[in-house]
Amino acid sequence: MIKAGIVGGTGYTGVELLRILATHPDVEVSCITSRSEAGMAVADMYTNLRGYYDLSFTEPDVEVLAGCDLVFFATPHGVAMRMAPELLARGVRIVDLSADFRIRDLDVWARWYGMPHETAEWAAKAVYGLPEVAREAIRQAELVANPGCYPTAVQLGFLPLLENRLVRTGHLVADAKSGASGAGRQGKVGMLHGEVGESFKAYGASGHRHLPEIRQGLEQMAAGRVGVSFVPHLVPMIRGIEATLYAELNDPADFDRLQALYEERYRDEPFVDVMPFGSHPETRSVRGENSCRMALHRQEDSPVVIVTSVIDNLVKGAAGQAVQNMNIMFGLDERAGLRVPALLP
Amino acid sequence: MIKAGIVGGTGYTGVELLRILATHPDVEVSCITSRSEAGMAVADMYTNLRGYYDLSFTEPDVEVLAGCDLVFFATPHGVAMRMAPELLARGVRIVDLSADFRIRDLDVWARWYGMPHETAEWAAKAVYGLPEVAREAIRQAELVANPGCYPTAVQLGFLPLLENRLVRTGHLVADAKSGASGAGRQGKVGMLHGEVGESFKAYGASGHRHLPEIRQGLEQMAAGRVGVSFVPHLVPMIRGIEATLYAELNDPADFDRLQALYEERYRDEPFVDVMPFGSHPETRSVRGENSCRMALHRQEDSPVVIVTSVIDNLVKGAAGQAVQNMNIMFGLDERAGLRVPALLP
Amino acid sequence: MIKAGIVGGTGYTGVELLRILATHPDVEVSCITSRSEAGMAVADMYTNLRGYYDLSFTEPDVEVLAGCDLVFFATPHGVAMRMAPELLARGVRIVDLSADFRIRDLDVWARWYGMPHETAEWAAKAVYGLPEVAREAIRQAELVANPGCYPTAVQLGFLPLLENRLVRTGHLVADAKSGASGAGRQGKVGMLHGEVGESFKAYGASGHRHLPEIRQGLEQMAAGRVGVSFVPHLVPMIRGIEATLYAELNDPADFDRLQALYEERYRDEPFVDVMPFGSHPETRSVRGENSCRMALHRQEDSPVVIVTSVIDNLVKGAAGQAVQNMNIMFGLDERAGLRVPALLP
Amino acid sequence: MIKAGIVGGTGYTGVELLRILATHPDVEVSCITSRSEAGMAVADMYTNLRGYYDLSFTEPDVEVLAGCDLVFFATPHGVAMRMAPELLARGVRIVDLSADFRIRDLDVWARWYGMPHETAEWAAKAVYGLPEVAREAIRQAELVANPGCYPTAVQLGFLPLLENRLVRTGHLVADAKSGASGAGRQGKVGMLHGEVGESFKAYGASGHRHLPEIRQGLEQMAAGRVGVSFVPHLVPMIRGIEATLYAELNDPADFDRLQALYEERYRDEPFVDVMPFGSHPETRSVRGENSCRMALHRQEDSPVVIVTSVIDNLVKGAAGQAVQNMNIMFGLDERAGLRVPALLP
Repeated sequence: MIKAGIVGGTGYTGVELLRILATHPDVEVSCITSRSEAGMAVADMYTNLRGYYDLSFTEPDVEVLAGCDLVFFATPHGVAMRMAPELLARGVRIVDLSADFRIRDLDVWARWYGMPHETAEWAAKAVYGLPEVAREAIRQAELVANPGCYPTAVQLGFLPLLENRLVRTGHLVADAKSGASGAGRQGKVGMLHGEVGESFKAYGASGHRHLPEIRQGLEQMAAGRVGVSFVPHLVPMIRGIEATLYAELNDPADFDRLQALYEERYRDEPFVDVMPFGSHPETRSVRGENSCRMALHRQEDSPVVIVTSVIDNLVKGAAGQAVQNMNIMFGLDERAGLRVPALLP
Repeated sequence: MIKAGIVGGTGYTGVELLRILATHPDVEVSCITSRSEAGMAVADMYTNLRGYYDLSFTEPDVEVLAGCDLVFFATPHGVAMRMAPELLARGVRIVDLSADFRIRDLDVWARWYGMPHETAEWAAKAVYGLPEVAREAIRQAELVANPGCYPTAVQLGFLPLLENRLVRTGHLVADAKSGASGAGRQGKVGMLHGEVGESFKAYGASGHRHLPEIRQGLEQMAAGRVGVSFVPHLVPMIRGIEATLYAELNDPADFDRLQALYEERYRDEPFVDVMPFGSHPETRSVRGENSCRMALHRQEDSPVVIVTSVIDNLVKGAAGQAVQNMNIMFGLDERAGLRVPALLP
Repeated sequence: MIKAGIVGGTGYTGVELLRILATHPDVEVSCITSRSEAGMAVADMYTNLRGYYDLSFTEPDVEVLAGCDLVFFATPHGVAMRMAPELLARGVRIVDLSADFRIRDLDVWARWYGMPHETAEWAAKAVYGLPEVAREAIRQAELVANPGCYPTAVQLGFLPLLENRLVRTGHLVADAKSGASGAGRQGKVGMLHGEVGESFKAYGASGHRHLPEIRQGLEQMAAGRVGVSFVPHLVPMIRGIEATLYAELNDPADFDRLQALYEERYRDEPFVDVMPFGSHPETRSVRGENSCRMALHRQEDSPVVIVTSVIDNLVKGAAGQAVQNMNIMFGLDERAGLRVPALLP
Repeated sequence: MIKAGIVGGTGYTGVELLRILATHPDVEVSCITSRSEAGMAVADMYTNLRGYYDLSFTEPDVEVLAGCDLVFFATPHGVAMRMAPELLARGVRIVDLSADFRIRDLDVWARWYGMPHETAEWAAKAVYGLPEVAREAIRQAELVANPGCYPTAVQLGFLPLLENRLVRTGHLVADAKSGASGAGRQGKVGMLHGEVGESFKAYGASGHRHLPEIRQGLEQMAAGRVGVSFVPHLVPMIRGIEATLYAELNDPADFDRLQALYEERYRDEPFVDVMPFGSHPETRSVRGENSCRMALHRQEDSPVVIVTSVIDNLVKGAAGQAVQNMNIMFGLDERAGLRVPALLP
């Protein structure tokens, strides 16, 4: 059994890791930390875990964490950056669900996250953990930067187009929508049910932290500059991200082969599902599941290819992808603990 | 008092007309028809109207309707097209909330609505009732084609850009999201709470009936061809539309004057509210109200202008705009019956 | 024009007062206070009020408030108790939406609200503002204690039964359910959309602050001791309270006259609507409206009468009833500003 | 591997059976029938099952069903009653999720379900499948009548009180609330999102089909007559039932031992969880899971014991309990396929 630790376990990604790992055949959660809730039983905070865990939250303690084979960081940005190096030095492998190691350009990181980066060395060594792009590197990685939720849905949707240089990269549009759990579990007025329920709005339309992460990923795929407009929106639901992506084909004749191209690209991917052309993936079809489900569309004779892509922001967009990465890192069946159909309805 | 009739009053736009007109100082609803519910009191079907109306649904009867000053059609497409001409001939003015008279090109109409158009004469005379564009024509109109919900939010958002030839019109994007009331009140499995709740999806991504209406409107504004990708989405809420619009400026230097341009364009409009640059209008801020509220955004140094625009699909997107049109047609205060703040929270 | 002030205007009852008073023909809001948001425009915090108010929040200032004809307190408990006496002494009339003056027995008050009561004099003079019970006293009142939301729905539902001594008063049950806005607008984790959405639970089942208020009211109606079990529940919606009430008839033969009794009792009440026997009032039928809508039920030959009663917790359960009380106090039409149909759907 | 068939698989209990059985180690679904959708792949109707099932819906065919070890009926009432006898005669065991075999008194059944019962023989032999009450009988059963959703939550909550004769049985109250999936997946106007969302109401307050089932169960537990008021309510969410139960203790001194009594009664039950006294179980804590979670409450010195009990109506209230029953019938680990934590948030 792999011994896993979780740092910062009181948020939604923390409980989601616990939920997924509760049925993972090869992993045991040996510790979970929280400064604010140390001493509390996890099953008292998250009553869905009653009967599954005897564990209590503890103060973060490097000695204890160093006894783990792998540590997940489910912390606000800035924490993993500071705690990871010592654990890595002691041979613990890390999957960081925060943003600390996602951005290569540390000046960009510092600008968007409002603090200087403190460990350029590990930022350089970290592997950006999108398995569909970097599976081999993940296998060897000591430190995996688990992708953001929006970036996962957007990158997987654009990937075959960009890898194959099929679209004009100057004016991509990624219009993305997320349930409220993406904002975490802090007591913010703006995230009250009374504020979020029965309403819809864009936010971060002038710039969101996932924009540089998305651009970095798309530019790597395109091997060149990419201009992308990315607007996130808040949906009055708990889980789920839908991204509607727009790109103009260099050659509209390519429309004929797009569906086959997408199916081929993702044929062996256990967690990407390309639906028939013109389908409309729903977020509920992946609720609680690790998949990214997508479909392609064309409007009349327009040269614009439209991709709709859905994930559960807490699963393929966070904890599920983290477990997928762990499975790869430890040579397990990549699907271990992740083969459960979505909860629908 | 203006005597108003409503044809097809059992749907959501019907009850919304009744709700708005209940407090309108100059209008009395003298009849409301429904084939399926003839004989039922409107207050039995819509209990929010208990105490406001004694009216019952009746079979549609041209003689009765001919006694009205104005008739609202809140019917599926195809009905107004057949019933309107006789009423118009007898001097009744009409606001048609259906799609029958929105599209100039009747071949286009026939293709999207799946039937031939039966009255080219009135289709040619009908005024497309977007007051911000056609107020004077509405004033004289015998027959007003009340705009669709998505087209209202999208057209008002793009209007100042197109009128002023500021953007490349070949690749506009209108990513729009609507609450479930937009689908009407038929018992369709796909619109059950168990299907719509806690999920988000695109629909009609390969072509939606509002696409030709949007294109027609934008092309009129731009006085030329427009390429627009329009994808509607279903939001797990009841009321509200948000449209996020993307257009590339011909000259990025124009960004500096966009805000002033929008404010100027809509300064005298009673039902368009331009928020400060970078604001995020929420659908709840217009819930139950006739306004379109919008804001402009730019991402770093991108040439793309982003407009976010919200309406209540049943009000400014349907019944409210219909009443606004009626007010204009009858020389009333344009805001009569429509001056009530949105219900928030 | 009556000059009204609002103390503590940033919460949901504050904005709801503003929304209702925006269209009140006889009242002008001359000041609204907030310690935390002083200087902010109310229309910046509540965008539904853009175009309706130029007002900004100010620090509470007794001199300014003393210039009002009436002051609404929309504050946490403990505030009105301290600020009201000076204003009352200066001739300002007060409607207190908080719990400070609702409970006659100040020991009971102190126990449930966790602080000693500081003004026994005004607690004794305050009129409990349930117009259906105390209209004449309200007319004369200097200080009205606006009833709690649950107590309004529960008391109006039981009233005819208790006034007429028809039921066994030892074991009443009031099972009540509320939308999330009842918890106010503080940033509490438990009220996040991610916590409240798609879930249902009881809370305060071992004792809620509205229990003594309910018991006091029911005992006054019954002119004797009442045993009542009251359990509130949290519904994943924003507005609305439903109370399902159970009482055993002393004489089951009385079932035959209950409907007539209820209709008679509330015949002249502008804001209580007794539906036909066996109807099921929905909270949405009063959304945004000041009514209490109710119906009676019997199961086979059971001696238990069941009453279902709905209100909008922010309107008849708070701000609407406060305006109704104000209207009574100032001799206005009791319905002024309150005659708008509920927003349905 | 046990070969299971499902009759009537297009509803919510059908897809839920498929979801649960997808990961059951000992069961294979060999056929699923639907008259209306014969020929359609289940994964096309329920996209969450893409990648889990190759199965398509077929016309019901007794020959095929007779080849199953067990058949689940997930049909409207009246179907199992007619189809089950032949299958039973051929040695197929049956778990009927419909109401056909739940009521012993066939006159009562006929009255509530509006048709005569056609197989008194099997109605007499059927075992009411509440494992916590009838595990041994279920083990031997050929035909199990899977309990209704409300009856499960209500009976488990009252069980220890009634078995131990602790409460007055003449005036029990069961105030129950359910998400919309309990109404099934038919296209009824009243269950549209636009009708159900953001509203709350009682329904069936004058008598609901689950009332006789509840009474029958409670009377068996109490070994005597029971008077129970049962009011169901519709909650604007998809899954979950909460029942708040009220009963008056014969001897209030018994309050001291109730918690221990409940814990003892359910100590060995894998799917009943008694929380600490005064806890508030949430429906989300069992979303997608087979548990019934409950807690006890007392208000001050009242003699009334209050029990709050939650289940997922589609799991412990339907498909999960059906699988639990199947596990018992076939001597499997009772928890097989059912050990997955609830989806929270």
